[in-house]
Parts: sequence; C-alpha cells; structure tokens
Amino acid sequence: MARHIFKFISVFSLLSIMVLPIFCLAQGQNKIDKLRINAGRLEQRLEKLAEFGKIPTGGVHRLAFSEDDIRSRIYIRSLMKEAGLEVRTDEAGNIIGRRNGSRADLPPIVFGSHTDTVPSGGKYDGAVGVLGAIECAQVINENAVQTRHPLEVIVFTDEEGGLVGSRAMNGTLTSEALKVISLSGKTIKEGILALGGDPDGLAKVKREKGDIRAFIEVHIEQGAVLDSENIDIGVVEGIVGISRWDVTFKGFSNHAGTTPMDMRKDALLAAAYFVIVVNKIVRNEPGRQVGTVGMIKAEPGAPNVIPGRVVMSLELRDLSEEKIKSLFKKIQKEAQAIAEKSGTKVTFDFIDTMAHPALTDPEIRKYIAESAEQLGLTSLFMPSGAGHDAQDMAKIAPTGMIFVPSIGGISHSPQEFTPMDNIVNGINVLLQTILKIDSGAQE
Amino acid sequence: MARHIFKFISVFSLLSIMVLPIFCLAQGQNKIDKLRINAGRLEQRLEKLAEFGKIPTGGVHRLAFSEDDIRSRIYIRSLMKEAGLEVRTDEAGNIIGRRNGSRADLPPIVFGSHTDTVPSGGKYDGAVGVLGAIECAQVINENAVQTRHPLEVIVFTDEEGGLVGSRAMNGTLTSEALKVISLSGKTIKEGILALGGDPDGLAKVKREKGDIRAFIEVHIEQGAVLDSENIDIGVVEGIVGISRWDVTFKGFSNHAGTTPMDMRKDALLAAAYFVIVVNKIVRNEPGRQVGTVGMIKAEPGAPNVIPGRVVMSLELRDLSEEKIKSLFKKIQKEAQAIAEKSGTKVTFDFIDTMAHPALTDPEIRKYIAESAEQLGLTSLFMPSGAGHDAQDMAKIAPTGMIFVPSIGGISHSPQEFTPMDNIVNGINVLLQTILKIDSGAQE
Repeated sequence: MARHIFKFISVFSLLSIMVLPIFCLAQGQNKIDKLRINAGRLEQRLEKLAEFGKIPTGGVHRLAFSEDDIRSRIYIRSLMKEAGLEVRTDEAGNIIGRRNGSRADLPPIVFGSHTDTVPSGGKYDGAVGVLGAIECAQVINENAVQTRHPLEVIVFTDEEGGLVGSRAMNGTLTSEALKVISLSGKTIKEGILALGGDPDGLAKVKREKGDIRAFIEVHIEQGAVLDSENIDIGVVEGIVGISRWDVTFKGFSNHAGTTPMDMRKDALLAAAYFVIVVNKIVRNEPGRQVGTVGMIKAEPGAPNVIPGRVVMSLELRDLSEEKIKSLFKKIQKEAQAIAEKSGTKVTFDFIDTMAHPALTDPEIRKYIAESAEQLGLTSLFMPSGAGHDAQDMAKIAPTGMIFVPSIGGISHSPQEFTPMDNIVNGINVLLQTILKIDSGAQE
Repeated sequence: MARHIFKFISVFSLLSIMVLPIFCLAQGQNKIDKLRINAGRLEQRLEKLAEFGKIPTGGVHRLAFSEDDIRSRIYIRSLMKEAGLEVRTDEAGNIIGRRNGSRADLPPIVFGSHTDTVPSGGKYDGAVGVLGAIECAQVINENAVQTRHPLEVIVFTDEEGGLVGSRAMNGTLTSEALKVISLSGKTIKEGILALGGDPDGLAKVKREKGDIRAFIEVHIEQGAVLDSENIDIGVVEGIVGISRWDVTFKGFSNHAGTTPMDMRKDALLAAAYFVIVVNKIVRNEPGRQVGTVGMIKAEPGAPNVIPGRVVMSLELRDLSEEKIKSLFKKIQKEAQAIAEKSGTKVTFDFIDTMAHPALTDPEIRKYIAESAEQLGLTSLFMPSGAGHDAQDMAKIAPTGMIFVPSIGGISHSPQEFTPMDNIVNGINVLLQTILKIDSGAQE
C-alpha cells in the first residue's frame, strides 16, 4: 500500500516535473498578456506634470531649458526611481531610466518621448509618451516580469526646439546647432548645461545601429483623423518628409486709383492663383500628402497700392520624397504659367530640407497592430504629419510609433485634449508591444 | 484842294475811329490766343523747388509742415510777388496770390495746387500745378492783359496728409482733423500755426458757392493712361469716389502636417478665391472702375500652420457711387458663396467713405478741350483715380482739372517723371482756359 502510495506520489511527481513548467509557462504568458497599466496612477501623474508651467488658460508653457522644464525633470526622475529604474542624465541632457534584462548580451528596448512644450501648449503632447513609458516600466517591475532585453525609458531634451536630444543620440546634433538660441533665451549649449548635460561630451551619447533593439514612442496624433474616424490606435507608418520653399511673385507696385485694371501687374492676384493651384495639385492625386501656403506677405501692403511683390511659404509633406519632388515639379510648372499670364515673375527659394521621410519598422508596426487587436481596439495605419523624436531614432533603430486620438485634431494649444480612456489604450498597446518585442524570436 | 485834303483826312479819321477799335480788338484777341508761357523759366523753377527736401535718390521728401516745406513756401511767395501778385497766407496756411480784374463785382478765377510731397516722393506731383499757375499769372501780368475777373493762385496746405487746405476752404476741416498727427510729427493744428496760419480763424477761409468763378488745377496724371496712349492732355471728368472695406475670412487654424487636405478650413485658400473674384467682377463690366486688394494678413502666418484667419483690404473706385455700390453687392454675394464652399465665414467691415465722387464742370471741361485743340494737342476725357484738392473745390465752385502724362504711370516715387514738353503743354492749356473763362459770356 505504502509502495502504491509511493508509486502514486512518484508518478505524480514525475508528471509534475514534466507538466508544471509547461503549465507555468502558459500561466506566465497568460499573465503577461493580461498585464495592464494602472490608469488612475497615470492620470494623477499627467495632472501633476501639467502643474509645471501651468498657464491660466489651462494649458502648459514649459519651454525646454526653462525653470519649469528643469523643475519638472526632478519630478520625472523621482517617478523613474519609483518605477524601479536606474536613472542618469546623459551628456545631451536626456534622462534615461534603465532596468536590466536577463540577457546581458541583448540591446535595450527603448521607449519614451519628451516633456518640453511649445509656448502656451497643451498637457498631452510629449507628456503622454513619457509618463506612459514610465508606467509600463513600473507595471513590469511591480509584476516582477523578467524581460530578456534591458528596458530604457528616455525623456528627450528639447523636442519642440528641434529634436535636440534625439539628434544627439543619432549623431546629427552639430556644433552649429548648439549655438542656436532657444525660446528659453539660452543657447542650446547653455540649455544642455542647465539640464546637467555636458555639451563637450556629446559623442558619448551617440548610439550606433544595433545598439538599440527597438524604439517605440506613444504620442497624441495632433491631427483629427483618429478622432473623426472614431479609431482607437494609429499605427504610424512613418514620419513624413517636409520640404519648404519661399515663393515670390514680382509684379509692379502702382497707384490703385490711377492704374486701369488692364495695365496692372498685380503680384497678389498672381499669388491668389498660386494658392489655389497648390491646393488643386496636392488634392488631385491619391495619397495622404499635404501642401500648405501658411505665410503670405504683400508689399507694400497698403489698401491703395497694387501689390508689387508677394512672398509666400510653400510646404509639402509626404512619406515619399519622390512624391514631394513630383508634386513640386507640377506646382512649379503651373506657377510659371500663372506668371506668364499675369505679367509677373515667379521664383522659388528652397529653404532647407526640414526633414527627410522616416519610415517605421514593419515588424514593430505588426506588433503594435496585433497588440491593439488583442486589446479589442480598432487601429489604422497612417503617416505622422508632425515631426517626432522617433524620426531621429528611426535612423539608428527599428522604430514604432503609437498614436492616440486628439479631440478635434487640436494640438500645440491649451485646448489640446485626449480622453483618459484613449491614453490608457495607447499605453496598454505600448506595454504589450514591448513585451512582444522582448519575447520575439529574433535573437 | 485844302478842303479836299481836309475832307480826305476827315473821312480817314472817321474810318479810323470806326474801324480801329474792331481792328484792335481782333488784334487783342489774336494776341491773347497766342499768349504762351515761358518754358525755360518754368523749368528752372521746377528744378529750384526740387532742391527743398531733395533726397539722394533724386526724389523729394518735403512733408507738409516740415522745415523744408516752410522754407519752400518763402521761395513760392517770392515767385508770386515776381508775378505781380498780392500775396497773403490765409488762416489755414494756404498761400494766396491775387491780381485784381477790371470788374470788382466778379468773383475770382482760382488756380493752383500744392507743394508738399509724400515721403520720398517726386518733384512733379503738386509742384507742376503750383509753378504752372504762377507762370500763367506772370505771363498775363507781363503782357499787361487786363482780365475782367480777379485771378487767384492758391498753394493749398498739406494736400498729401488729407487735403487740409482745400477742406478748410469748403468748410469741412473739422476740429477733430486738427488733432491728427501729420507725418511731420506736428498735429495739423501745430502745422497750420507753423505755416503762419491761425487754426482758430478757419471760418474766415471758407468760401461759399458763387464766391469763386472757377477753380482749375493742373496735375501729373499719376497713372499710365496718357503715356501709354500717347495723348498730351487729360480732361478730367471728375475725381473718383473711394470706398474701402476690411474683409475677413475666418476658417480654422491647424497643424499643416497632421490635418488632411479634406479636413481643412483654410482661410487663405478662401481669400485666394476672393482676390480673383474681385478682379473678375470689376473687369467684367465696361467702364473705368477699379478694384484692389492691396493688403493681406494671414494668421497665425507660419509655414507649418494652416491659416485660420485672413484679413484683406478691398477698395473700389469709380466716378459713380451707384456703380461702386452695385460692384460691392456682386462681390459680397460671391464672397458668401466662397465662404460656404470652403467652410469659412466672411465679414465685411466698411472703413469710411474715403471720398465721394466729385464731378468737374462740363463748361470748364469744354474750355480745356478747346484750348488743347487750338494748341494742336491731343486730349482725352478721363477720370482721376487719385484724390486732389480739386475734389474739395468742386463742392463750392465750377471746377476743372488738366492732366499731363506721367511716364510709366509712376508717381509718389523718386522715379516720377513728366517731360518738360508735356508740362509746358499742360500749363499753356491752363493759361488759355483761364483766359477763355475770363472772356466767357456768362456774366
């Protein structure tokens, strides 16, 4: 009997030894799939962060390198520590919170965003991505999830002033850029020093291809596509390239009373035809390209003088640089025809390659879309029309971006708003995406 | 024989007594018809006057009430005296040179213009009319022509700053207008004092209907009609009325990168359609009406932001107030259609009745045209698109205006130019017109 019992126990033990790991592994995966962020904590922190640089209109004025920026970073560092991260400020002023993985040979999975704002901005742009990243790290830590890869949460320096921190990370922050005077009044160099960085040691910040397993950023859309189509998650296909020109029509300035209609060389009339042509050409082909004339100046600019010279801005954005080029060629041709017809002259001055298109990584897009689906959320593949640190990170690492809706598409404004439900959805997608990347079969 | 001789002498005397006056009268009329101005003297004086406020670019900067204005008036007074005129400065600062006529009961024939300039203006605008008027008076005086009417040469105060002297003369210079700060830095009141006027005695300047037999002004056209059609003399039909509006299109300002083309409410795109519509409506009907959008402001006015608000000026000018009203109605209707189509809102703010149309006197137009013909000059009936002192004088006196060509239509610029031949033609027409009015059968 005792023997039978022994045998039974042995068989049971044997079964246990064989089955338990499989059972536990399944249990573990199940637990990981069910991991969710702490929505209440995230909401509280969003409110708290918005106190730094709060303005009476309800918005946030927290310029990079300002006193409010510096104070808010002390708060951010405390949250990172609370999340179990090892915190340091790199030479570019980026705050990096790190948690080691089980395998020392694997590069880190990096996620984050920025906490600086535009003048009189909102409390979601950047902040959602940073606090969401810390929240993911904290949930992983609290649930004692052992990732294979190290995890790094990054708060990038001065995003709004020109992607300073992420440019340092991909090695494109030039010494010229350090001399630029930021909106805080400090040069970028002075600003980095004020954040505790070391502008002379920027080389140490630079990461090479392969140094980062993946970079993922959650951000509010800053457009109205998700909101108006009632979609939870935007899977960003890439950050569009931006090309800009100054367009000048030169006619002849003359007395508005004494110059008959058929003797005029009205530069503003030519410019009006141009504005319409830009709109028509950009809209006439399929795709999500955009074209904008946002600035216009008519000279001399008096009600009783026919404008002799009009300068306008032309901006084209698309994920494909080829498309931008082809649109511009068409616009240029039509502008020439307008000039000939109106007796004016037109010139285009290329301003700067504001940004080349930066595509996200197909594998990470897939993880984001799958995570959204598992969470029961709707998603849409879409371009990002705005610039983000992710575009710099895409140069050195497989990159993904997760968009959450901006109500009414309003951003860079105190009226900027994203409901908490949408934010929580986005950060849960981030959490699941990180874990999927970590357990991915690549390494 | 002696008796015969006596008889012969008597008959001869009798014949002489009868024929001579007729002969002399014909001779006198012939002499008057052949009266011409002294071109060389006029040219010298134009050069001399242009020294007051001369600028390096070759233009003249002689703002009303400035030191240069005051110094130039001493020169003008000296010329008037040289022309045999009795000179005084009236309470509004107008300089008046007078020569009595043979009949004390007749009102004066008045002619003149102004000597102040716009900032960095030319040497012909105003100066031609003033020096030409003095020249006419001097030629009449030198040739001992006895006019029936008194003659008055007037140099009006501060024409460019708002027809100050001529408004005083028709009684519409308000006490509010005296408070306006002129470009010289002085208020109009201070300016009038500086010219030797008496702002408290303006009532004495006012002339009633009937006080002036006629007012005639020679002026450069400030447009290109005469020059381009190669015509010597413009017979001005009237000074056009001017109506002005601020036109505002309100759309929605948004991120130029994140807002798809079909979600935009681009105020500048709507404004572009508006500029074109104004041009089309104004050109679509016969006549010499003009319509101008000279000022445009797009807000916020950045290359990467869709304009949410655009403010433009709309100015319409014509000799007929009815036509201005009907054009505006059509423009307003089309603007409404543009707004509806583009999801924007449009509003029109009427600025001010800048000026009501002022028609010249048909009889004086006829005298001008006849004088031109007798001088072998070509002439054209045309509106004045610019404002002049003549428009104020037309309210109280039968008024005429004589235009001479502006090369290229350029005015209010150092490049302003009218060849001396054209000026001499215009002033000879003025001389003949004065004499025709004087010998006219009206009184």
